[in-house]
Amino acid sequence: MTRNTSIYGPLRLLVGLGCPDLGQEISEYLGVRMTGRDVIRFSNENIFVRLHSSLRGADVYLIQTLSSPVNENLMELLITLDALKRDSAARITAVVPYLSYSRSDKKDQPRVPITARLVAELIQVAGADRYITVDLHAGQIQGFFSIPGEALTAIHILIDYFKTKPLQNVVVVTADLGFAKTGRNYAAKLHGRLAFVEKRRPINGGGPEAMTIIGDVRDKDVIIVDDEVDTAGSITGAAQIVEAHGARDIYLSFTHPVLSGPAIDRLRSLPVKEIVTTNTLPIPPGKRLPNMTILSVAPMLGEVILRAHEGRSVGALFE
Amino acid sequence: MTRNTSIYGPLRLLVGLGCPDLGQEISEYLGVRMTGRDVIRFSNENIFVRLHSSLRGADVYLIQTLSSPVNENLMELLITLDALKRDSAARITAVVPYLSYSRSDKKDQPRVPITARLVAELIQVAGADRYITVDLHAGQIQGFFSIPGEALTAIHILIDYFKTKPLQNVVVVTADLGFAKTGRNYAAKLHGRLAFVEKRRPINGGGPEAMTIIGDVRDKDVIIVDDEVDTAGSITGAAQIVEAHGARDIYLSFTHPVLSGPAIDRLRSLPVKEIVTTNTLPIPPGKRLPNMTILSVAPMLGEVILRAHEGRSVGALFE
Amino acid sequence: MTRNTSIYGPLRLLVGLGCPDLGQEISEYLGVRMTGRDVIRFSNENIFVRLHSSLRGADVYLIQTLSSPVNENLMELLITLDALKRDSAARITAVVPYLSYSRSDKKDQPRVPITARLVAELIQVAGADRYITVDLHAGQIQGFFSIPGEALTAIHILIDYFKTKPLQNVVVVTADLGFAKTGRNYAAKLHGRLAFVEKRRPINGGGPEAMTIIGDVRDKDVIIVDDEVDTAGSITGAAQIVEAHGARDIYLSFTHPVLSGPAIDRLRSLPVKEIVTTNTLPIPPGKRLPNMTILSVAPMLGEVILRAHEGRSVGALFE
Amino acid sequence: MTRNTSIYGPLRLLVGLGCPDLGQEISEYLGVRMTGRDVIRFSNENIFVRLHSSLRGADVYLIQTLSSPVNENLMELLITLDALKRDSAARITAVVPYLSYSRSDKKDQPRVPITARLVAELIQVAGADRYITVDLHAGQIQGFFSIPGEALTAIHILIDYFKTKPLQNVVVVTADLGFAKTGRNYAAKLHGRLAFVEKRRPINGGGPEAMTIIGDVRDKDVIIVDDEVDTAGSITGAAQIVEAHGARDIYLSFTHPVLSGPAIDRLRSLPVKEIVTTNTLPIPPGKRLPNMTILSVAPMLGEVILRAHEGRSVGALFE
Amino acid sequence: MTRNTSIYGPLRLLVGLGCPDLGQEISEYLGVRMTGRDVIRFSNENIFVRLHSSLRGADVYLIQTLSSPVNENLMELLITLDALKRDSAARITAVVPYLSYSRSDKKDQPRVPITARLVAELIQVAGADRYITVDLHAGQIQGFFSIPGEALTAIHILIDYFKTKPLQNVVVVTADLGFAKTGRNYAAKLHGRLAFVEKRRPINGGGPEAMTIIGDVRDKDVIIVDDEVDTAGSITGAAQIVEAHGARDIYLSFTHPVLSGPAIDRLRSLPVKEIVTTNTLPIPPGKRLPNMTILSVAPMLGEVILRAHEGRSVGALFE
Amino acid sequence: MTRNTSIYGPLRLLVGLGCPDLGQEISEYLGVRMTGRDVIRFSNENIFVRLHSSLRGADVYLIQTLSSPVNENLMELLITLDALKRDSAARITAVVPYLSYSRSDKKDQPRVPITARLVAELIQVAGADRYITVDLHAGQIQGFFSIPGEALTAIHILIDYFKTKPLQNVVVVTADLGFAKTGRNYAAKLHGRLAFVEKRRPINGGGPEAMTIIGDVRDKDVIIVDDEVDTAGSITGAAQIVEAHGARDIYLSFTHPVLSGPAIDRLRSLPVKEIVTTNTLPIPPGKRLPNMTILSVAPMLGEVILRAHEGRSVGALFE
Repeated sequence: MTRNTSIYGPLRLLVGLGCPDLGQEISEYLGVRMTGRDVIRFSNENIFVRLHSSLRGADVYLIQTLSSPVNENLMELLITLDALKRDSAARITAVVPYLSYSRSDKKDQPRVPITARLVAELIQVAGADRYITVDLHAGQIQGFFSIPGEALTAIHILIDYFKTKPLQNVVVVTADLGFAKTGRNYAAKLHGRLAFVEKRRPINGGGPEAMTIIGDVRDKDVIIVDDEVDTAGSITGAAQIVEAHGARDIYLSFTHPVLSGPAIDRLRSLPVKEIVTTNTLPIPPGKRLPNMTILSVAPMLGEVILRAHEGRSVGALFE
Repeated sequence: MTRNTSIYGPLRLLVGLGCPDLGQEISEYLGVRMTGRDVIRFSNENIFVRLHSSLRGADVYLIQTLSSPVNENLMELLITLDALKRDSAARITAVVPYLSYSRSDKKDQPRVPITARLVAELIQVAGADRYITVDLHAGQIQGFFSIPGEALTAIHILIDYFKTKPLQNVVVVTADLGFAKTGRNYAAKLHGRLAFVEKRRPINGGGPEAMTIIGDVRDKDVIIVDDEVDTAGSITGAAQIVEAHGARDIYLSFTHPVLSGPAIDRLRSLPVKEIVTTNTLPIPPGKRLPNMTILSVAPMLGEVILRAHEGRSVGALFE
Repeated sequence: MTRNTSIYGPLRLLVGLGCPDLGQEISEYLGVRMTGRDVIRFSNENIFVRLHSSLRGADVYLIQTLSSPVNENLMELLITLDALKRDSAARITAVVPYLSYSRSDKKDQPRVPITARLVAELIQVAGADRYITVDLHAGQIQGFFSIPGEALTAIHILIDYFKTKPLQNVVVVTADLGFAKTGRNYAAKLHGRLAFVEKRRPINGGGPEAMTIIGDVRDKDVIIVDDEVDTAGSITGAAQIVEAHGARDIYLSFTHPVLSGPAIDRLRSLPVKEIVTTNTLPIPPGKRLPNMTILSVAPMLGEVILRAHEGRSVGALFE
Repeated sequence: MTRNTSIYGPLRLLVGLGCPDLGQEISEYLGVRMTGRDVIRFSNENIFVRLHSSLRGADVYLIQTLSSPVNENLMELLITLDALKRDSAARITAVVPYLSYSRSDKKDQPRVPITARLVAELIQVAGADRYITVDLHAGQIQGFFSIPGEALTAIHILIDYFKTKPLQNVVVVTADLGFAKTGRNYAAKLHGRLAFVEKRRPINGGGPEAMTIIGDVRDKDVIIVDDEVDTAGSITGAAQIVEAHGARDIYLSFTHPVLSGPAIDRLRSLPVKEIVTTNTLPIPPGKRLPNMTILSVAPMLGEVILRAHEGRSVGALFE
Repeated sequence: MTRNTSIYGPLRLLVGLGCPDLGQEISEYLGVRMTGRDVIRFSNENIFVRLHSSLRGADVYLIQTLSSPVNENLMELLITLDALKRDSAARITAVVPYLSYSRSDKKDQPRVPITARLVAELIQVAGADRYITVDLHAGQIQGFFSIPGEALTAIHILIDYFKTKPLQNVVVVTADLGFAKTGRNYAAKLHGRLAFVEKRRPINGGGPEAMTIIGDVRDKDVIIVDDEVDTAGSITGAAQIVEAHGARDIYLSFTHPVLSGPAIDRLRSLPVKEIVTTNTLPIPPGKRLPNMTILSVAPMLGEVILRAHEGRSVGALFE
Repeated sequence: MTRNTSIYGPLRLLVGLGCPDLGQEISEYLGVRMTGRDVIRFSNENIFVRLHSSLRGADVYLIQTLSSPVNENLMELLITLDALKRDSAARITAVVPYLSYSRSDKKDQPRVPITARLVAELIQVAGADRYITVDLHAGQIQGFFSIPGEALTAIHILIDYFKTKPLQNVVVVTADLGFAKTGRNYAAKLHGRLAFVEKRRPINGGGPEAMTIIGDVRDKDVIIVDDEVDTAGSITGAAQIVEAHGARDIYLSFTHPVLSGPAIDRLRSLPVKEIVTTNTLPIPPGKRLPNMTILSVAPMLGEVILRAHEGRSVGALFE
């Protein structure tokens, strides 16, 4: 067999409109060119996809993140999967660095959907044989798929970055109690302590939500961590209360820069020294703040794709 | 059992954001109130649906057309179906008056998807037990569903309207040869003749597409028919050539007013006496031309829903 | 890997009772011998299939057309697929040059089946991983399959044949308005004009069906085209009216020679110069007319099988 | 609810071409008229089914046995199921008194199909929600279905008949060792003894199959039992050897009169007093021998249908 | 229809060997007798289930918790579901108060299963149409099911009990950071504060796991909360550190009393005033401590079953 | 490709807790080391599986027999399959030498499950692509799987062993009439005669079950055969009656030594010369009788695995 060919056929890359730059980086990491395709959005808003060359018998990795416009990008992902399936690709892996709708992962009130499960089903029914994603909002979302996949984490990339900095008396703070356990892992790897921000509605139901900090941050270097920052409401509150309690330097660290609505305005006004995130979602130039550091997940995704293609252990990469 | 209850449970209506007015009309036809629901589009573009009251054990008809924004409305449809399924509705019927993506119904070139089949699968996997739709681009799309459903037609509504007019020497013209057979049916019911417009690219590949009329339209009242009008390109060409060949009055008749992009500008400038269509898609005020007549499919849909609910023949309605 | 082996295993051919000669031709094209198998029809009419040698781990192409006896051949196809699946073939492609039941592809009246979708399901459930077929009655039938496949066309084979003839002023006539669009493509490739035959029942419902020709055929060389000729009713009517309108030479061209019931008697009596068709269905000697030309689809099918096996583009073959 | 209506909707009967008389008998037992339907076999051999009235929302029992022509009747069954499903029947039960292909129920040699499982899958995929059948060749075939069903037996009908006869010293003989266990049950209920016929090929492989009787039949009234008689080869051999060993009166008893090929000629020449069977398969007049008694399964099927419809125990019927 | 009958048929209860007392309580709440069944465990360890009377056409609720012996009880659940499905029950709801294997809900290391998803699949494939369960380890496990269901919580039962006690300065402590968010809800409803116990391995990897308390418990009444107590390791550590930090009275509160291995010995030795739990799992007499309070979930489950049966809102019960 | 690699990836073996010795033997036969894995049974009885190294892209054979503890071993099998699937193994074959629950293969009374079908479904849904098993209780159980597989027999191993013995006038006796046909095959291959043991309840229902021998065993060497021996009830009765009828030497021969409950005590007291069985189930030292001969199925399984891996005929091995 020739180079880059395995029992699944030759390795091929296809990149959706959601993350062209990340796709390019992965392509360079692998030394495999992106297969051309047209993605046309007709004036009736129907999305149409046409592959420039056949991927018949190939081991195809379709890289498409669910960035804005989210539903357009999701439909493009599904439609491209259908085109790949009907083109008789040998194996199709949906590489979705940011899986949107992940917060709708359970019925925590009556009469609502579990959209994350629905999205997993849609990806499967459209034709994916496997999936690769990064830092799911909840690890359990892996179980929404019946196909195999890799639910990777970029946390070690973020931590490695912080390890290069001369931080003192690190305290890791989670803005969301649902992220407490992951926060503990962060703290352990950085040999830091842990603190939490608790939000609670007033008993009488009136007035603003009260915020408490549980744990000690005074004169500490604080890293506020989360899996994603969307409108930046929680993380803003956390940064403010942490500052009010006398923290030294404050850092923000999160994998997915969703940064919707008021997020950038809020982040801009925060007393934080540095905002560290990744490129699982593209950040348009207008949203790049001077104190923002964007680490690339491309080498990780590229290496995982290579190992998946060649039938080598992915887990070993992280041990 | 109480009124409006069958072996499928009580009849309930839910209406999506795609066609609120049509939903209201159907609700009035049936004398059944629309069940309230929230449809929230968060700033991260995630759509969230919450039913105001439980539809457990009910025979639910979810009315949502795939109007603009198409992909948003499709996702809302799928998410609402998931919410209904998880709320233990007894039977769920997706009522989709206009099924978008219907023109992507076959691979007529290599390496493309069959998105209409994909959409049918998505609707099924999300939780629909049945579907109801109107004037599919191709009747075969019924076979893309494995669930039962009603693929209705509004053509008799359009024809009945034309029968009230004092037309003379009617000739039915189809702008798209793929619609020729349906055009014949139009003509037969109106006791008119038939003519076709043929488009063909020049042999040398250069210059504009040539258009020919096959059949005789001089001094005739002409009805140009199609299933939908999207950008109005074909129908515009047809109207022009029909006028150039000496037609008397010209009418346009089509079920689905997609009317995207340049459609309205094109239609406004055409020498047609009347444009007759339906409300399977809402037409915003700015797109309503003075010579436009919009017939309602609400009574038909309402009656079909009632019969489906009660286990009475739908086919008999059309015989 | 040895010759004729790909990631799907070695290439193997199996031929059903429906088209032994075509199977032999494909076998010769590919230089791959047909795997032996018994097909026994017990006196209780149960069909039994036994493979002469194991196809475990092979890339198997089962060639079986749905010729007469149609339902026997369909059951043989399904039973053989089950035998192949349970023999652990690595990949199974059902090659069905003529897919019967294709005209039952939609509910155009109430309370009828969509048998073409059913047949597609049966082929899948029996064990096919892919399908290959030729000139489906409607391209949408591709979407009845959720497995990938190639819906090929033999029209270019027919057209290439006509291009070798000294035809003058060609007019392509379609006998069935549902075939109008394909007729247009025929005409465009032959640089000819287009005409249509319209059938219509009398308004009062009594008397014979009236037939009109739309377009001009006088003194022209006419090719009447269709996808298949079954009882030859439509095409006979078309040939007669075309002759009555003064056509010069008349040709018939169609892919699938079903030729059931009165077909041969009708064709024999027609004033046509040549009947051009293919071998997607075997034509028994008694049905071969002197003016009949049968073109072979074997090289096309053989080449497509080879490309599918080797993971090379099939689409490129037709571009 | 009105009479004959349950939570599954009103009870409706549909009868296929395989067993019109049995259908009529069941209809009379139930006092429910058969719903009309057309079954058309076009000259291209395609089967077409059209229901005369809608079965929407009904609890439908489709009665179709797999008599000759077997594959035609099977396809008719599948196509009718599809029509019923797409007509939105509330629940569909396939009543198949004789399930053909039941002897192909395991791979007892390499590279063969398990057609009985395939047939069960086809019935499910075509749209059946439940099945009812009689005396499967092997009880395990119930497990080939994932849908629920009733695998009934007519043996008690046969035994009750024999109980009315003044038999002496009954010995039950099975012609097929695979039927030994059921033969034991026969014998137990008739308070008779048991004997077996063993067939064995000669050791050197040449010459005719040798037949031995194991057990004592001299001067006994012998009932040779089996589930079905196809070509009557085994049962003929059994009758001959039983006679040769000095049996008094000999009876044949079997549920399914397949009676294919040489069966009738063989049965006619046998020294048996009476041939007792049922009408799970219609016996054409020319195959009805003077010593043949045909018992009806219609009351049993009718009663089971009624109980299934009303949600009452079927098992209790047999206890 | 008679009382206790809905569109799903009459309400029927079946109780597995895992929780006979709870089943009895639910039966009394509903006034519906338990349907008899045999559950036999042969000496070859095969479990066999036989229903005493038919549940054909009934709305069946099978109550089986996954108590010890866990895998036996799971197999009994699956086998009973199969028996119910094949008995043509109209609708089958698996009521599983404690869903074992819930902690195996994600791949948090390479090469491990997601057993909770597997168990959900097994329950579905065995025949359940719906499920009801209590306090899943993670809410996302709802999304492991594609069938609808009710994931209930008993936390309000526990909280209501604590509200009857004269507690002072309540602090809610979670022993597991993954439970932090639920702990916050506990605290909010009890108008108490929140504290956490953090466990961390020493940096050099040697020595015992270090435990820290984050938040203030001195002189407070502390309730240590969790979803389940298995070996009681975490909760024991939490109780000890809370005591060491000067808490006043200490309470334990958890839904599922798994209480395996050393649990009872550990709990017995703890300085806690009261252990409050429920009967989602039966607690054998030998494991009932004097300071243990067992609250019943039977009224909640009974009411939910009734509402599900009658098609009334379950969500409304909790609002 | 390297040795031991095929289109399905490299050959890998994994062995469950049910049959470690058999796994070791197969490993030695193949010269392929067993992949390490942890199987942990927590004190809450949850089984947890962790592979020591990745099996991504491999052709994996998981060897796990359903020995005691049966339900634990079945759950371990399912959980390991899930782990393999989620580790992206290329193809997974469940090798289950003894498939428990096989006797629950049909509904021979109302309201019982078909557990063998359920088990087949569970194995498929957990992730198996293929199965290999030995001497199913009924060959039809092959049809309970929709995945391909090999249902092997060890009978030729047993017969080859008996052929090495100086037996005289062999009579093969089946203790169970359901095994009569297989008994005939035994007898034919050993050139022996055939006899049966019939059990029957007394007519009045009281008193012990009566046992009759049908056929002649006096002064013959008798081999009593069955597929498995569970409690040894039937085979004990058979041996006693055979001895009472004057047999010479008596042998027992069966594939699966289930040997539960009183089996060993019964076998120990029987007047049989030799008990011949296989190692499809491990026999603990305390159950090994002096006159017991255990033949290994490891070479057969090893060879079948090798051929399945390499895509060579398995059937040819047995012809």
